[in-house]
Amino acid sequence: MESMMIYMPAILAVVGLVFMWAKRSWVLKQDAGDGKMKDISSHIYEGALAFLNAEYKLLSFFVVGASIALAAIAYVVPTTHYLIIVAFIFGAFFSALAGNMGMKIATKTNVRTTQAARTSLPQALKVSFGGGTVMGLGVAGLAVLGLTGFFILFFHYFMGGEWTDTTQMTVVLETLAGFSLGAESIALFARVGGGIYTKAADVGADLVGKVEAGIPEDDPRNPATIADNVGDNVGDVAGMGADLFGSYVATVLAAMVLGNYIIEDMGGNIVDSGFGGIGPILLPMAIAGAGIIISIIGTLLVKISSNSAKEAEVQKALNIGNWTAIILVAVASYFLVTWMLPEETLTMGFFVGGAEGFEYMDISSIRVFYACLVGIVVGGVISAVTEYYTGLGKKPVLSIVQNSSTGAGTNIIAGLATGMISTFLSVLLFAIAIWASYAFAGFYGVALAASAMMATTAMQLAIDAFGPIADNAGGIAEMSELPAEVRERTDILDSVGNTTAATGKGFAIASAALTSLALFAAYVTFTGIDGINIFKAPVLAMLFIGGMVPVVFSALAMKSVGKAAMKMVEEVRRQFKSIPGIMEGTAKPEYDKCVAISTEAALKEMLLPGVLTIGFPIAIALIPMLFGYENVLIAEMLGGYMAGVTVSGVLWAIFQNNAGGAWDNAKKSFEAGVMINGEMTYKGSEAHKAAVTGDTVGDPFKDTSGPSMNILIKLTCLIGLVIAPILGGHTEGDIPNEGASIEMEESINAEDLSEEIQVNMTSEGNKTIAKVRITTTKKGKTTVQQKTFTGTKAEVEKQVQDLKDKA
Amino acid sequence: MESMMIYMPAILAVVGLVFMWAKRSWVLKQDAGDGKMKDISSHIYEGALAFLNAEYKLLSFFVVGASIALAAIAYVVPTTHYLIIVAFIFGAFFSALAGNMGMKIATKTNVRTTQAARTSLPQALKVSFGGGTVMGLGVAGLAVLGLTGFFILFFHYFMGGEWTDTTQMTVVLETLAGFSLGAESIALFARVGGGIYTKAADVGADLVGKVEAGIPEDDPRNPATIADNVGDNVGDVAGMGADLFGSYVATVLAAMVLGNYIIEDMGGNIVDSGFGGIGPILLPMAIAGAGIIISIIGTLLVKISSNSAKEAEVQKALNIGNWTAIILVAVASYFLVTWMLPEETLTMGFFVGGAEGFEYMDISSIRVFYACLVGIVVGGVISAVTEYYTGLGKKPVLSIVQNSSTGAGTNIIAGLATGMISTFLSVLLFAIAIWASYAFAGFYGVALAASAMMATTAMQLAIDAFGPIADNAGGIAEMSELPAEVRERTDILDSVGNTTAATGKGFAIASAALTSLALFAAYVTFTGIDGINIFKAPVLAMLFIGGMVPVVFSALAMKSVGKAAMKMVEEVRRQFKSIPGIMEGTAKPEYDKCVAISTEAALKEMLLPGVLTIGFPIAIALIPMLFGYENVLIAEMLGGYMAGVTVSGVLWAIFQNNAGGAWDNAKKSFEAGVMINGEMTYKGSEAHKAAVTGDTVGDPFKDTSGPSMNILIKLTCLIGLVIAPILGGHTEGDIPNEGASIEMEESINAEDLSEEIQVNMTSEGNKTIAKVRITTTKKGKTTVQQKTFTGTKAEVEKQVQDLKDKA
Repeated sequence: MESMMIYMPAILAVVGLVFMWAKRSWVLKQDAGDGKMKDISSHIYEGALAFLNAEYKLLSFFVVGASIALAAIAYVVPTTHYLIIVAFIFGAFFSALAGNMGMKIATKTNVRTTQAARTSLPQALKVSFGGGTVMGLGVAGLAVLGLTGFFILFFHYFMGGEWTDTTQMTVVLETLAGFSLGAESIALFARVGGGIYTKAADVGADLVGKVEAGIPEDDPRNPATIADNVGDNVGDVAGMGADLFGSYVATVLAAMVLGNYIIEDMGGNIVDSGFGGIGPILLPMAIAGAGIIISIIGTLLVKISSNSAKEAEVQKALNIGNWTAIILVAVASYFLVTWMLPEETLTMGFFVGGAEGFEYMDISSIRVFYACLVGIVVGGVISAVTEYYTGLGKKPVLSIVQNSSTGAGTNIIAGLATGMISTFLSVLLFAIAIWASYAFAGFYGVALAASAMMATTAMQLAIDAFGPIADNAGGIAEMSELPAEVRERTDILDSVGNTTAATGKGFAIASAALTSLALFAAYVTFTGIDGINIFKAPVLAMLFIGGMVPVVFSALAMKSVGKAAMKMVEEVRRQFKSIPGIMEGTAKPEYDKCVAISTEAALKEMLLPGVLTIGFPIAIALIPMLFGYENVLIAEMLGGYMAGVTVSGVLWAIFQNNAGGAWDNAKKSFEAGVMINGEMTYKGSEAHKAAVTGDTVGDPFKDTSGPSMNILIKLTCLIGLVIAPILGGHTEGDIPNEGASIEMEESINAEDLSEEIQVNMTSEGNKTIAKVRITTTKKGKTTVQQKTFTGTKAEVEKQVQDLKDKA
Repeated sequence: MESMMIYMPAILAVVGLVFMWAKRSWVLKQDAGDGKMKDISSHIYEGALAFLNAEYKLLSFFVVGASIALAAIAYVVPTTHYLIIVAFIFGAFFSALAGNMGMKIATKTNVRTTQAARTSLPQALKVSFGGGTVMGLGVAGLAVLGLTGFFILFFHYFMGGEWTDTTQMTVVLETLAGFSLGAESIALFARVGGGIYTKAADVGADLVGKVEAGIPEDDPRNPATIADNVGDNVGDVAGMGADLFGSYVATVLAAMVLGNYIIEDMGGNIVDSGFGGIGPILLPMAIAGAGIIISIIGTLLVKISSNSAKEAEVQKALNIGNWTAIILVAVASYFLVTWMLPEETLTMGFFVGGAEGFEYMDISSIRVFYACLVGIVVGGVISAVTEYYTGLGKKPVLSIVQNSSTGAGTNIIAGLATGMISTFLSVLLFAIAIWASYAFAGFYGVALAASAMMATTAMQLAIDAFGPIADNAGGIAEMSELPAEVRERTDILDSVGNTTAATGKGFAIASAALTSLALFAAYVTFTGIDGINIFKAPVLAMLFIGGMVPVVFSALAMKSVGKAAMKMVEEVRRQFKSIPGIMEGTAKPEYDKCVAISTEAALKEMLLPGVLTIGFPIAIALIPMLFGYENVLIAEMLGGYMAGVTVSGVLWAIFQNNAGGAWDNAKKSFEAGVMINGEMTYKGSEAHKAAVTGDTVGDPFKDTSGPSMNILIKLTCLIGLVIAPILGGHTEGDIPNEGASIEMEESINAEDLSEEIQVNMTSEGNKTIAKVRITTTKKGKTTVQQKTFTGTKAEVEKQVQDLKDKA
């Protein structure tokens, strides 16, 4: 069993994909309704495909460019292998494939949900959630399958499928980082490009359709209405899917990298502990694999029986599935941690005090489970906080509603303030998560906290993707002029979908933040630096620049929406003017032209933010090199930049998402009527108009610039991780099979004190590097000091001997 | 001459204050106009006094509380003396005095400017700028006098007026930090409280007066109009003055602290270099002193001759004065640096590479001058960038104007995006300033860059304070129903004042940022830690929390404005209803009630943000202590928090100030008419209404939350600096005159290599601490290693001996 464990996550992923396929077949077998419905649905489907195809074209250029850059890195850095390019391409391909499948099933499920809503609400939920499940399992299954598959491949290719040493494993994991980078690159296109697409179409459709022409939302006479519905899928389904795909892969990868360092900290070989000596590396994959099966169980629990159910019952059904999955992940983590980690204790490096305070400590392996619990709990609580700040009927949204009575200005101020204040609890929780999971199990604990939280990704995505499907289903019901009860049923699902969208965004931010943190930790270990000292001026300067980038990125994304929307407005105006009979419904608008405009504009406008994201870390690594800066300092500067981007990016993500969500629901509150200064106020009132203005500002916040932050912070840290080996420690002395290597061990034992000296000496040309580790155990507490000597062989041997004499 | 140099800055400050007094007498001798004008002016004057008196009452409680806290610190920390309380109280008193004088002269000058404008524009400029000059010189003079006076006092009290050692000097400077803390505390009240006051009065006056009652701005029938005019003085005069007073003092103090470390790096004694051996400590004070005289010269150059002059000529007059002052500061810095620093070379500690990369290097003292130049240039360029992003007729403002045509929503998005994008250049410049000034002369260079930039504070404040005086003068002309030409003349001054207000804000941010940085550097040296490693999880967690605080602080400040404005609205409504004849102008409104409401609300609402600012750093220092964390780790955590607050605070300051300034000028653009889609559009159009909404959002941004960031970041770093000794290195072994101290020096010389070992051994009870510094010079390059041994005396001596044997 133990030796087969390496294959288990991949097998579980395949099980998930098989279940996904079965579910997909079931959904597609459902009745797709009559002619008009089918017609509209196929317009949306084709529009979605048009976007995907345009995206793929742009992507292929990007992939070629990035591959060349990776080839250059592989050429320069001995530990980076050319296979990183293959991993990168497959990472991009798998993520694109998952997005493609998700978009297709979502655009097929929408009309089937409408049709199901004609019979009953339980059936409509079953169909729409079925579509979401396909999306969720597709993303999670492909992520786990791809990552574990390539791990198995590289493990066999580089190490012959047997444990050799941590340096070789580092090569495996550095190559595997290509897969993660590929996946996150797709997320950049899907999330940022998708975010621009969806808002450009939305604003364009609303401004000309609703405001100028005075026709209702989702009216088939509006040429931009199909683009608008496509946008929901592009942004909320494909964008969110690619985002979580990227987080999932990056989190597990970072945990694997840190697992390898645990093995190193334990002496470089733990084959005796079973699992081929790679238990700590397999553990995050195993949790991810288990999460897929658990998510299937969770999705099976989501159902309602009563046709007269309201939002609360639907929400309850989703909650039961979600919480069951979360609890099962906690249970599974317990068994996996105790089973897979080396027996009772792990040796781990901790920073405990001042500059010299790096200490190796023996910790109980159960503490890794506690770290998992931290991740699971914090993920849940951050989602709850997000729901509080953006939820209908909650205090923050009600306060924005009240502030709408004095005009748009006060509404805007209230919304901005809500978004800003919401950072307090979220960041506090996040700081606690870092602190606690690190205190339990070092950075490995932080990465596993993230992994455990991400284990229910399939379930989260199922809940998340069901929202836009229900939204689309409502649109189709409207456009097809179906009976009111159909729209009422889809509206119940849509309303629940809005809530899950908000919590889903909270989950996505939390996951992106924890992922970045895990990547950040992996980065430091990859580069071999001792830490990132922001008291060094160049590092501090980079912290500032890193802090600025998310702000500028957000502004660029917002401006992009404005530009793309303007193009859409012009096209819709043109069609209203030049197509006779369009307003009477006798002539068909040219939907595809609007889709093409949104597609083109979105992809064009995402270039600048994309260049910013990718260019900055590369420039920070390269420019100081030209000035002859030491690699170690550059590594710290890049680390400072990554920290700046992460801290500022998390803040701006929470601020923008929550402000946007709160404005949206403040506007929606007027639909049912709100009490302002003792008077019931409804849609069409002055206060409502102010709330609509707030929502206009909030839209790009919550759908474009806010969610883009997730990608920005993860991609920044991933690029750092891929660059790391260029800057990093183990390119100098640790190159395997080069130079002479002498291993010496000596130990003394006296009373309560034992001291062990390990020396690893490597030579390259004239230069010899000795890494000395002195492990002192005193009254059960182990302290490790590390020293490095460089010079000629004779010099170094003398220094090492001196040290031993002293001991 | 050299030995008297310590008194020179204080003497120059007194010269400045004498000039200030002469100018003040001249201004007060000017004609204050007729009955109605005098009446209105005295209302404003009394309102301003009412605010100050209420503020002082609250302040006295605060000062008592803070004094008790400081007494506790002095009790715990041996190197912190009880005199810190005296310094604190005087710091608060001097800053309050400067604010008081500034407010009084501003509220006396306004009516005299109106009267002068009845004769000619040159005379109006002379009077209004004269008032500004009094304010500027009062602030700068008192700041330099207070700081240098207390330095002389403490230098004599603790060291007998003679150089002893750097540890004693640290005690002097730690005690002096109390002065800076006192000054910055006043700034918290003046800037944050003042910011809330001015916007509450403004919004209250506008909402009921302009919108509900339909009477023009500054109409004497509006009960809130006096409060509104008082607000201009409270916020823009007293708030800005206290802000710059605090920056000025803190910058010079930080440079002095770092100067002391240069003396330590050079061996602890440079008496041979003249200036009583404290040249590097005196230098920043000397530059500040010279700056006062230079500012006087600058103010003398500000004049126009033509009565038909326009904005451009007035602006040019101000620019000539300003740029002359800046260039003269550069020249003076050159002479002072070359004269006062130890001859050719300075030894300074630099972080140059990896973890062990701390190196002592000999640098030419002229490089300190280059660092000064960096500060002067960057200060100027950041002001120019601010002017670009907020200036009338510039691209960003024009783009907001264009976006107003599609409604308030797009106007808001454009304004937010402008503020966000403006962070790019500002932060880049700021990063360059850190990098370059550090590269030239280490953190001493960073602090001197800030000091040189701040040297023209008196001139900057004169230009800055002249704006609100001209604004008030216009208000008085309006309320007194003077001929149109008077208002035209004051409008020219007011318009120029708006531009200088924007650049002044840029200057204030840049100075706050550089000040924080200098304080941050001083903090690290005070605590004696080697750096701040954000790879330690608790430090990283604090970086996140630090990043969040400015965001939450801004939100609280914005909400405070909303609450205070609501109270004002109710009061104005009440007066309109209950005072018969008020609208006909036959009955007088109760101005004082509105003033009282604004005063009370402002001071009450600033409590929560104030508690947040002061409470967080204290909590971060104390809570981990309860958990038994090591002091060194806590020091790093607090440092991480300070860095987070500074990075995020600078970003949010730039974002909010520039967005607010841009919205304001976008609205003002409609007064002269703007071209939108080929049509001239004016006040009253739909686009103008959208721009007014934008300005409503921008008002608290630019006048309350934005400028508050300056105080937040400086006060955070100052509190850190005062707490530092509790956490810091020199509380353990460096306690003067306690335990036995043995000084040993040994050196070897061979070929190109020289090695010197310095040992400083101190004992306290059973525990002996040896600090060993090994200075190796090899081929002209000096490397210093520092090691610390602790244990019993015998143990430590053995270890030191071993080390020497090895050498």
